[in-house]
Amino acid sequence: MSEQKKKPSLHTVLTPSLLDLYEVHDSIVVIIDVFRATSTMATALYNGASKIIPVDSAELCIEMGKQTGGITAGERDGKIIPGLSYGNSPSEYPRSFIENKTLVITTTNGTKLLHMALKQGAKEVITGSFPNLSRVVSFLKEQNANVILGCSGWKNRFNIEDTLFAGAVIEEIKDQFTIHCDSSFMANQLYNMHKADMPNYIQTLTHWHRLAAYGLEDDMQYCVSKDVAPSLPIFKNGALIDLK
Amino acid sequence: MSEQKKKPSLHTVLTPSLLDLYEVHDSIVVIIDVFRATSTMATALYNGASKIIPVDSAELCIEMGKQTGGITAGERDGKIIPGLSYGNSPSEYPRSFIENKTLVITTTNGTKLLHMALKQGAKEVITGSFPNLSRVVSFLKEQNANVILGCSGWKNRFNIEDTLFAGAVIEEIKDQFTIHCDSSFMANQLYNMHKADMPNYIQTLTHWHRLAAYGLEDDMQYCVSKDVAPSLPIFKNGALIDLK
Repeated sequence: MSEQKKKPSLHTVLTPSLLDLYEVHDSIVVIIDVFRATSTMATALYNGASKIIPVDSAELCIEMGKQTGGITAGERDGKIIPGLSYGNSPSEYPRSFIENKTLVITTTNGTKLLHMALKQGAKEVITGSFPNLSRVVSFLKEQNANVILGCSGWKNRFNIEDTLFAGAVIEEIKDQFTIHCDSSFMANQLYNMHKADMPNYIQTLTHWHRLAAYGLEDDMQYCVSKDVAPSLPIFKNGALIDLK
Repeated sequence: MSEQKKKPSLHTVLTPSLLDLYEVHDSIVVIIDVFRATSTMATALYNGASKIIPVDSAELCIEMGKQTGGITAGERDGKIIPGLSYGNSPSEYPRSFIENKTLVITTTNGTKLLHMALKQGAKEVITGSFPNLSRVVSFLKEQNANVILGCSGWKNRFNIEDTLFAGAVIEEIKDQFTIHCDSSFMANQLYNMHKADMPNYIQTLTHWHRLAAYGLEDDMQYCVSKDVAPSLPIFKNGALIDLK
């Protein structure tokens, strides 16, 4: 009999509240915050931002902006947070504006999960979103390491859009991983059920209604568009950079 | 314009770890532990058990068994826990055995969630499973109160079988509730995707593999059979009784 190579494991964590149930140590953690943090991060790096510093408060955003000379960004209730300069929309970061600049950005759910993953000793932390789906898939296929797909959710609750992205990744890489994880099975089934009708399906989600109230429908449609910003944000030395 | 009656809310809690994110106070909480605690509880009460006392340890189970003269039950790794007399299988509790008796039972995931719901001030606590689906649905339709469908999961992780049951309940009552909850949308979609093929689908789940290793396949098929034990377990004065 030929020796079979042991496949690495893959798990999906449905909200930050559940992260500590999993073996984060020595896993690659993919931070997923589809509406809109990780979609915006992929876009800014694809458009040439030199790095992105994710921070968990407006105060720290202002402070880091001063220290780095970077652009400060963050929203609350659909408006730019007082003291910061830009918002969380991917459309605010075209190449003509963001190239060679540092972006200091504060977001609620995604940044929290990213810091949790770092604190728990993740082997690597990358960010994933539909705009950079194929880059995430390629990276995970190359690494031969355990993977945790980390959904940022909404205030620690489950959300569908992050789970759909986890399901899209799983669809592409499941043959290369050992998956004993109902969350992953569910995510993959949910994605396959809705992948052909994503632009309409997302309009039924709780987060759609929340952000549509701020006129962000175009943002959300962009955020479920595959491979429109094919960067690979990876956390190195305190910031996300594009792995070339 | 005619005055519209405000519908009560419905949420699905995917694992016990997430319960404290929801307004448990003044909600009816449905404890769901499909494989097998709440299926067994529905069965024992349907077969005439006078009451069921759910406890969270073998020690307490032995103690309460002595105090009440009840039958003690609980399993670990597919075997009866030393010091207790019976297991967690619904097949162990036919009418000829359990009628007019008290059952003191220890289970891991479901009992934990039940006690959390009581501690957080739930208006009522009932248990749900496919064997008593229609009784749960009828009860919730009559109450005109907010509902939380509480999935017991597995060691605080998400599982599919409890979510499927939540989805089955939602399918029957969704028109009477206001649902702003991605967990509920997902549960309902997952149920509708698999309801026609439940006996085969459950064989793909992580819990199936765990329990099949102990030869419990028949138990699990019973646990996804609708309305075969139409009791309504409701928690009153320290025990679950059948609401006639």
